[in-house]
Amino acid sequence: MQIIESASGLLSETQRYRRAGKTIGLVPTMGYLHQGHLSLVEYLRPKVDILITSIFVNPTQFGPSEDLDSYPRDATGDLNKLRAAGVDIAFTPELADMYPERGEVTVTPPTLATRLCGASRPTHFAGVCTVVLKLFGLSNCTDAIFGEKDYQQLQVLRAMNRQFFLGINIHGGPIVREPTGLAMSSRNAYLSARERELALCLNRALREAQQLFEGSRKRKEHLSVERLRTHVLSGLPLSEVGVALDYLDIVDPTTLEPAETLNADTRVILALHVGKTRLIDNAALID
Amino acid sequence: MQIIESASGLLSETQRYRRAGKTIGLVPTMGYLHQGHLSLVEYLRPKVDILITSIFVNPTQFGPSEDLDSYPRDATGDLNKLRAAGVDIAFTPELADMYPERGEVTVTPPTLATRLCGASRPTHFAGVCTVVLKLFGLSNCTDAIFGEKDYQQLQVLRAMNRQFFLGINIHGGPIVREPTGLAMSSRNAYLSARERELALCLNRALREAQQLFEGSRKRKEHLSVERLRTHVLSGLPLSEVGVALDYLDIVDPTTLEPAETLNADTRVILALHVGKTRLIDNAALID
Repeated sequence: MQIIESASGLLSETQRYRRAGKTIGLVPTMGYLHQGHLSLVEYLRPKVDILITSIFVNPTQFGPSEDLDSYPRDATGDLNKLRAAGVDIAFTPELADMYPERGEVTVTPPTLATRLCGASRPTHFAGVCTVVLKLFGLSNCTDAIFGEKDYQQLQVLRAMNRQFFLGINIHGGPIVREPTGLAMSSRNAYLSARERELALCLNRALREAQQLFEGSRKRKEHLSVERLRTHVLSGLPLSEVGVALDYLDIVDPTTLEPAETLNADTRVILALHVGKTRLIDNAALID
Repeated sequence: MQIIESASGLLSETQRYRRAGKTIGLVPTMGYLHQGHLSLVEYLRPKVDILITSIFVNPTQFGPSEDLDSYPRDATGDLNKLRAAGVDIAFTPELADMYPERGEVTVTPPTLATRLCGASRPTHFAGVCTVVLKLFGLSNCTDAIFGEKDYQQLQVLRAMNRQFFLGINIHGGPIVREPTGLAMSSRNAYLSARERELALCLNRALREAQQLFEGSRKRKEHLSVERLRTHVLSGLPLSEVGVALDYLDIVDPTTLEPAETLNADTRVILALHVGKTRLIDNAALID
């Protein structure tokens, strides 16, 4: 595995591969890799000639009071995992490689980035879109993959790819869960034992939504969006100390606009503060 | 020459060329082609395998009180000129091809877009950057060319290309002038005979700046930025009815920040209203 630190180094390498007609896959990460990330590598590995994983904790997608400084890191462990997973190039830029100038051009994300996570993190998706567009440029990728855990991010990036006509195949990687059902996240490292217990409510809420929907379908009963939402909401432990709802929404899977009716693809998506940690999760009504 | 109207049609065609290892050149235009545009075609033609010229009057780069509705058009004449110039593909999209969705992602241009023309046209360069990024995506271009007449635009797009790591070779095409010295522009079509006479002052101002600089150099005299600016300004016919200065600046050729000292590359750049028409021009202190 080649480790490339400089932006210009990656650009010249990937331009050479593209000229030679190779397909290039990109797995962008912020490091501290877990099985969720590695499942994205495994998914894309057989689909492309050259597989690149980037490790870059991108400051522009963190808000001023967020966890940029404490975001967990494990450079050596990450590289070992990527090597074992058959990655060709690990791209590990410094801040000045990614943002070399002052007053740089940025991406203003599509409207769908203003909902859900965008409502409580107003600058987040501008940072994500900008850094991902830069990574697309540097990697010359034909394919890229993003986890469905960050479901809104996936849809925002798909919209960017479509609307800017970037022509990249954007893949969504299924959520990987711990045996308890907790969606894997680097931020789970922040959780105390009690918080980890409380955090199971996110996945539980999604399963309850699926069960209610499935039951209504079987009994051929109409289930309204509002009844589903009320039911899921009532199952969340919002009276527990340290648990606070950011949002719980039932949305169209592409536009992320509030669903008007329910179907198998309708997405249930939620964000919850557990202690100082903000956790997100989502699922389709039928997996 | 192939005429392609649909975005998806162009994208599939250019992806095929790129996979085959061809170089692709893009000449973006808003049509009503004159020798200025054709000189860009001539410049890029021998440098690339496939040459694409786009004709699209992009509404997002016009301000609300600007000349979008009256912008001159000549579809048939344009296609004949491109055919004669050896263009491979003329891309003539409709509005809905370029902007198919609501609430789309946009580019927020770099800081250097806020100066000069950006000060009086605050949304202009966001529109330019967004449409050009879309055209870059659709054309899969390895090379693109923009005229130096829109000098700030050229520098803004170079910054976008550099900062987003697009890896495109951006060429600047020298200004083409009428025998009178007036820089060619589709907007010259708006000028009355008297206005056309008055409009010669832009080029004259640039030549005066060059002569003053050249003379000072020969005599080894120091010439300050302020003295140069005052001299050029005093030569403009600002007391004439219908003539109004937008800006006259002496700037660093890359950052477009005000120059502190003068050298051969220092750029003199100005914008002037003549009647209802806004005209721009620029030159280096030594051509």
